[in-house]
Amino acid sequence: MHIVDIITKKRDHEVLTKEEINYFINGYVSGEIKDYHASSLLMAIYLNGMNYEETINLTEAMLHSGDVLDLSDIPGIKVDKHSTGGVGDKTSMVIGPIVACCGAKLAKMSGRGLGFTGGTLDKLESIPGMNINLDSEQFKKQIKDIGIAIVGQTGNLVPADKKLYALRDVTATVEVLSLIASSIMSKKLASGSNTILLDVKVGSGAFMKTPEDAKSLATLLCNIGNSFNRDTRAVITNMQEPLGLAIGNILEVKEAIATLKGHGPKDFVELCEKCASIILNQAKIVKSLDEGIKLVREKINNGEAFNKFKEFIAAQGGDTSYIDNVDKFKVAKTSVSIKSISNGYISEINSLDIGKAAMELGAGRESKEDPIDYTAGIVLSKKVGDEVKVGEEIAKIYTNKEDFKNTLANIYGAFKIVKKPVEEPKIIIDYIK
Amino acid sequence: MHIVDIITKKRDHEVLTKEEINYFINGYVSGEIKDYHASSLLMAIYLNGMNYEETINLTEAMLHSGDVLDLSDIPGIKVDKHSTGGVGDKTSMVIGPIVACCGAKLAKMSGRGLGFTGGTLDKLESIPGMNINLDSEQFKKQIKDIGIAIVGQTGNLVPADKKLYALRDVTATVEVLSLIASSIMSKKLASGSNTILLDVKVGSGAFMKTPEDAKSLATLLCNIGNSFNRDTRAVITNMQEPLGLAIGNILEVKEAIATLKGHGPKDFVELCEKCASIILNQAKIVKSLDEGIKLVREKINNGEAFNKFKEFIAAQGGDTSYIDNVDKFKVAKTSVSIKSISNGYISEINSLDIGKAAMELGAGRESKEDPIDYTAGIVLSKKVGDEVKVGEEIAKIYTNKEDFKNTLANIYGAFKIVKKPVEEPKIIIDYIK
Repeated sequence: MHIVDIITKKRDHEVLTKEEINYFINGYVSGEIKDYHASSLLMAIYLNGMNYEETINLTEAMLHSGDVLDLSDIPGIKVDKHSTGGVGDKTSMVIGPIVACCGAKLAKMSGRGLGFTGGTLDKLESIPGMNINLDSEQFKKQIKDIGIAIVGQTGNLVPADKKLYALRDVTATVEVLSLIASSIMSKKLASGSNTILLDVKVGSGAFMKTPEDAKSLATLLCNIGNSFNRDTRAVITNMQEPLGLAIGNILEVKEAIATLKGHGPKDFVELCEKCASIILNQAKIVKSLDEGIKLVREKINNGEAFNKFKEFIAAQGGDTSYIDNVDKFKVAKTSVSIKSISNGYISEINSLDIGKAAMELGAGRESKEDPIDYTAGIVLSKKVGDEVKVGEEIAKIYTNKEDFKNTLANIYGAFKIVKKPVEEPKIIIDYIK
Repeated sequence: MHIVDIITKKRDHEVLTKEEINYFINGYVSGEIKDYHASSLLMAIYLNGMNYEETINLTEAMLHSGDVLDLSDIPGIKVDKHSTGGVGDKTSMVIGPIVACCGAKLAKMSGRGLGFTGGTLDKLESIPGMNINLDSEQFKKQIKDIGIAIVGQTGNLVPADKKLYALRDVTATVEVLSLIASSIMSKKLASGSNTILLDVKVGSGAFMKTPEDAKSLATLLCNIGNSFNRDTRAVITNMQEPLGLAIGNILEVKEAIATLKGHGPKDFVELCEKCASIILNQAKIVKSLDEGIKLVREKINNGEAFNKFKEFIAAQGGDTSYIDNVDKFKVAKTSVSIKSISNGYISEINSLDIGKAAMELGAGRESKEDPIDYTAGIVLSKKVGDEVKVGEEIAKIYTNKEDFKNTLANIYGAFKIVKKPVEEPKIIIDYIK
């Protein structure tokens, strides 16, 4: 087999065989197949596509390119969730403790955020003492003991994805369904859980710009997962405005804690309840989503969810005195209230703009090596559909930077205010199972 | 400017600007832009194409990626010719001396053959003593003095093409008109001649498989050349069978000498006469092609063309005693006569098969470092249209290899013999000016 023949086939709109896809992935990981071969093939895949079978085969080849975690010695159903990434998304920190205190086993490996704001790992690390680097044995023991662990990747899982993703990023071959799907699913499958819930974001701050694209991706992801015998489902959720109110690491941890105590922002609470109840249904703990929602609310109201969160933080070395008293968290040197300059109704809070602004304030990384300022970020005071008057606060920024004039202007630009009342947007657009 | 944005544009079917193409070529030659960027862009170009203006801009960027030869201090019109490469093509060795003895100045830089048989340089080097490595000054002086020089590339001409061609070869991005055309024309334009005649081969042994494709390429090449103010013309010629009878380095030199003495094979003579007369017309030495052909025949018949060939060989250090007495050339250890096993008419002598067979016998290189056996090759005894009887010789092979059973079988396979008479094929399919 020669890589140039495989490139030629895809270039000429032919379907690659399982053997050809394996040859590519194995050769690329071993270094025999070079980046320049891979980028040429990736562009041919971008332009000519891959069918469902090719995507399954690619996922499988990537899945087996490194270690595969075996969680079978943990009793019960191991559940996992994954979000395609959105601005203000602190869902895992809330859902995890809820489903764990109901008896599900959440085994989640998370990524760092290279996007606008930190990823789940960065958010967790903003809690003093928190250790997200567990090895496989520690990871499994913690899931067995307390039903939840959220860690960085352990072991050499899916090295093919690391190499391919870095290459796609610099060769304009990111946004293609088959490659996105195989990247997400190979990692989820290698992490060893029995069920997977995917949160596919749609809107300006997200990968998928239209509900149709999001539905295509979600359906593909579910099909792949189910074909590997994992109960895989997806929600498609709105990213036309940031999720909840807080954007930025400590700010989001505080919002997660408030939510676990029953005081979360409406859209975020709705999403957490829905996702948690789906996971409980996947874990066969509840028979219906309605039953799930009831159980979730009960666990929040009786304090069990909050206590499970503290147990989880403590198990990974985090200082729970911060959880009990969130005022202990460091606060940014500067906070500025942003006030409306017009009367009307908010019709859009552009997630992309808000995410970029949060990054500029210090909450995210522009490149891999950049440090994160855990205290920086934005808290929205209004959401889409709210009425505002001139002089009323629409958001508050937190930063340690000296110069943030441009960022302020960008945040103003993110808000669209119109004269006529605007309907409150739906957070959950679709549910695919 | 970022290379990923340029890749994105071409991926999305947009037209690249002159600045973007320059940025790519300059960055690629300097090493800032990597092979993996380039291969991704090349695949996008392969699949989405480049329009005429982009192709012109690419040619110009490549042309200026290294040295550009200035022949303006040589008086008169400097002519050049280029063939897209065919099996048995020894045209330059014949045309060069003819046009030079008529007063044109042939300034030709040639390539090595990485194909089935040697290139013009390899064929010339099969003449003992012949030196094809002249520097620019020696090259120009020889053209001034005797009107002809055929050498390997002098100086750092078109480094962009060397890098790009090597990459295209291993990433399935060779066969695309804009890239083929810019590769050929950037090199021809950098070589500094005033006129260019292109011989675009079509058929099984050639790059272009159909006359339509060949005409597209030839037209594009001529348009590019003319837009750079060079009188550029093209002939489209038949490569459904090898050109002439001899394939292999010394064998082809001998055929070239015979042709210069007036005893060449019919198809080869016709092509040489036509090309030489076009070049003489480009050099403003003759007013019409008919006048050209008359002059060419005169120069062959009166021995001037042959004498110019000897002068050319002598000027580059070659031993002309071999030219005067071709029996001095080494002969392969083994020669085998291949005889027809059926009665009928030859309808095809597959160039690709014959080229590969000649390579197997030792006449060509499989990889860059392979040595060439100058004595090896094939001499056809019959051409398409000829009648053959069982037992009659159809070809003769020359080799120093011990085992050539498979090659013999392949040569048999290259000949198609049918029952009904076959028309003799036309060597020149089209002429584009």
